[in-house]
Amino acid sequence: MEREVSTGDEPYIVVSSDTHAGLQCEEYRPYLESSLHEEFDAYVAERHQHRQIAEELNADFIAEWEGENEWGLRGAYDPDVRDPVLDADGVAGEIIFADGDAVTGQESPPFGAGLAAGQITDARQAFGGARAHNRWLEEFCATNPVRRAGVALIPVVHDVDEAVKEVESLAGKPGIKGVMVPTMWHGHPPYGSDHYDRFWAACADAGLVVHTHSGEADFEAYNDNVAMYIAEVPFWTHRILWQLLFSGKFDKFPDLRYAVVECGSFWIGDLLWKADVNFGASFKVKKMGSRMKGLISRLPSEYFGTNVFIGASTMSKEEIRRRHVNGLDALMWGTDYPHPEGSWPHTRERLENDFQDASIEDTRRLLGLNAVDCYGLDEVGLRSVADRIGPTPQQLGQSRDLRTSADAVRKARWWLDEYGCQMQYA
Amino acid sequence: MEREVSTGDEPYIVVSSDTHAGLQCEEYRPYLESSLHEEFDAYVAERHQHRQIAEELNADFIAEWEGENEWGLRGAYDPDVRDPVLDADGVAGEIIFADGDAVTGQESPPFGAGLAAGQITDARQAFGGARAHNRWLEEFCATNPVRRAGVALIPVVHDVDEAVKEVESLAGKPGIKGVMVPTMWHGHPPYGSDHYDRFWAACADAGLVVHTHSGEADFEAYNDNVAMYIAEVPFWTHRILWQLLFSGKFDKFPDLRYAVVECGSFWIGDLLWKADVNFGASFKVKKMGSRMKGLISRLPSEYFGTNVFIGASTMSKEEIRRRHVNGLDALMWGTDYPHPEGSWPHTRERLENDFQDASIEDTRRLLGLNAVDCYGLDEVGLRSVADRIGPTPQQLGQSRDLRTSADAVRKARWWLDEYGCQMQYA
Repeated sequence: MEREVSTGDEPYIVVSSDTHAGLQCEEYRPYLESSLHEEFDAYVAERHQHRQIAEELNADFIAEWEGENEWGLRGAYDPDVRDPVLDADGVAGEIIFADGDAVTGQESPPFGAGLAAGQITDARQAFGGARAHNRWLEEFCATNPVRRAGVALIPVVHDVDEAVKEVESLAGKPGIKGVMVPTMWHGHPPYGSDHYDRFWAACADAGLVVHTHSGEADFEAYNDNVAMYIAEVPFWTHRILWQLLFSGKFDKFPDLRYAVVECGSFWIGDLLWKADVNFGASFKVKKMGSRMKGLISRLPSEYFGTNVFIGASTMSKEEIRRRHVNGLDALMWGTDYPHPEGSWPHTRERLENDFQDASIEDTRRLLGLNAVDCYGLDEVGLRSVADRIGPTPQQLGQSRDLRTSADAVRKARWWLDEYGCQMQYA
Repeated sequence: MEREVSTGDEPYIVVSSDTHAGLQCEEYRPYLESSLHEEFDAYVAERHQHRQIAEELNADFIAEWEGENEWGLRGAYDPDVRDPVLDADGVAGEIIFADGDAVTGQESPPFGAGLAAGQITDARQAFGGARAHNRWLEEFCATNPVRRAGVALIPVVHDVDEAVKEVESLAGKPGIKGVMVPTMWHGHPPYGSDHYDRFWAACADAGLVVHTHSGEADFEAYNDNVAMYIAEVPFWTHRILWQLLFSGKFDKFPDLRYAVVECGSFWIGDLLWKADVNFGASFKVKKMGSRMKGLISRLPSEYFGTNVFIGASTMSKEEIRRRHVNGLDALMWGTDYPHPEGSWPHTRERLENDFQDASIEDTRRLLGLNAVDCYGLDEVGLRSVADRIGPTPQQLGQSRDLRTSADAVRKARWWLDEYGCQMQYA
């Protein structure tokens, strides 16, 4: 919260903290190590079958979506399409994840090494597919490094040494600002164990933000019931946040930053309330108090905005109303372009509809400045893009009289006073 | 919400929706089938080792808790102690779960067949231990069937036929009002599958409320980190609620009632918001809409208070403030007696402190009437106990001017209007 934020009328720097890009699967071939080409050709055939099944199940939606957005969807891999698409949406910068196609899964890295990486069982395929995407991503981001910040794929659960090597090779590459790890660790050690410590250290040293992104969940439990999947997927996506936080990784590696993406933000306030009270009001866990000592050094909420960030994508109005309790300096808005769950191609209307009651300074943080700070983006460069395309406070129908009080976050976190929270178990 | 609730000054019927009772482990021997006696003797020795370890880890707390409450803790198994303990706490009736001792685990059913039943791997031990507790519980509840409603143990994951048999043998026994199943299904089919359907049918026919109770969680993920356990245990406890609801069990078995116990209630409002919107505002899940159809017949929130109940134990003030959104006719307060996490032996002070701002009619529902309705308790009998011992609205410092408007729940569920929710996928 150190940063001074303008309450003026200049356009917003909008950074979408959640976009996707990737080649059509078969076109990753030249980026893939040749030792994997034979397996890859079989995988490509399987992906095409996957599209056929998806089309049979969901024909109307797919035809409508792909028909209406044919040109814009090509921006998943074509930079000459992507820039005008972002311009039209008012988006200056973006944090780019894999898997451009969330409808039939055609733009998927080799072997599903993107959002489905946790489900790969062969470490060679997991790393090979990830490296192929990372090579392409580097080229893609280099086409406009001010606007494009790429998140490379690192299937760390399969091999920590290999993961550290990949991080070291990505460090300092323009346009690469983060890494994504599988959301689930399956049979491997959980993320809170010491097993991965040299990987977190390498990410912190390289200034690469670690991510999990929604997608995977405990599929075996659902018998294909999509309502169960939708209900549980946030838990499986943000689970690593608490693994890292409660195991003290942000104390051990103070420069480590982690962002959970496309997982909403509705769950944050209540989990922070519970966690702050457990560490800050000792009478709450008296039976277990002896086992709380020394796990972390600050109240859990105090890691938000320094180590923990939330790529909350297209927040609901309610989540915007809850911005102070959930983390005014941690929340990052996003479009999810080019996925249909997001705001694209109607982002300007969405912003006009949703942000009317937010103060200008809060809006600046959520729409862009928190991402600028989290990822160390080129603010000067983004400003010049935003001046050309960014929506203005006036366009969002915001009143200049709305101001954020200095204690807005403290007050929104009502439990700090109601329970008299003070760190008890440092 | 059909019931008329008095706003008068008469004492509250307090029903604790979460208490525990059980013998010292070794004393279950006469209730246990003799074919299991040899294994049981080894188990008892192991429980005593468990106490030694607990004492080493947590000596100060254990000495203080057991020293201050020596007499009252005997109420875990001695009805002559239990009645005056409940009287002193102002509690007229109670819903009784296994595992009287939550500190060192000495009052645990054979083989851990109570709160830890999911971790048993031998079906013979799981059912043998459960039946031993159920036999004892039946006797214990018979000592005062107006006040004591027992929850029998049924480790259904191990053998559905055996579970149905046990339900049929429990049906109609005075004092037995529910059954508890393991919270986690481990390698067995998930609760939302059809595998358990004849068990849900048997419970609905017998009028026995199905429960999960907090205790188990994904221990392997925590490396003994207690903060991770505390953060995740609600998810693992209420997971079955969504398995049952989204798989349509409450449509298939309209008389089936399920209560999730000692899991708080803070998580309910947001999960209902999300679930109602997914089923009630079709544009939210357009990509997956074709797969939502026919899963359930009403909006998820509409199952609360008819099929779904919440044994929320000693609610926080915030959870009391959120009573309308979370389910005014579903929430059931509880003491957790004789566990140290609860309000005993200071329940009267706790009620005086926490319920001041609630209306008298809401308080009557939360403290007792919802439990009376959920379990079909003897309201006339409980009224005569309450008239002798129950706290009054005046003692709770409540104003008679506080009234609950007829649309309080509808308004608290703000998403119904904001999204225009109407069931889309029946």
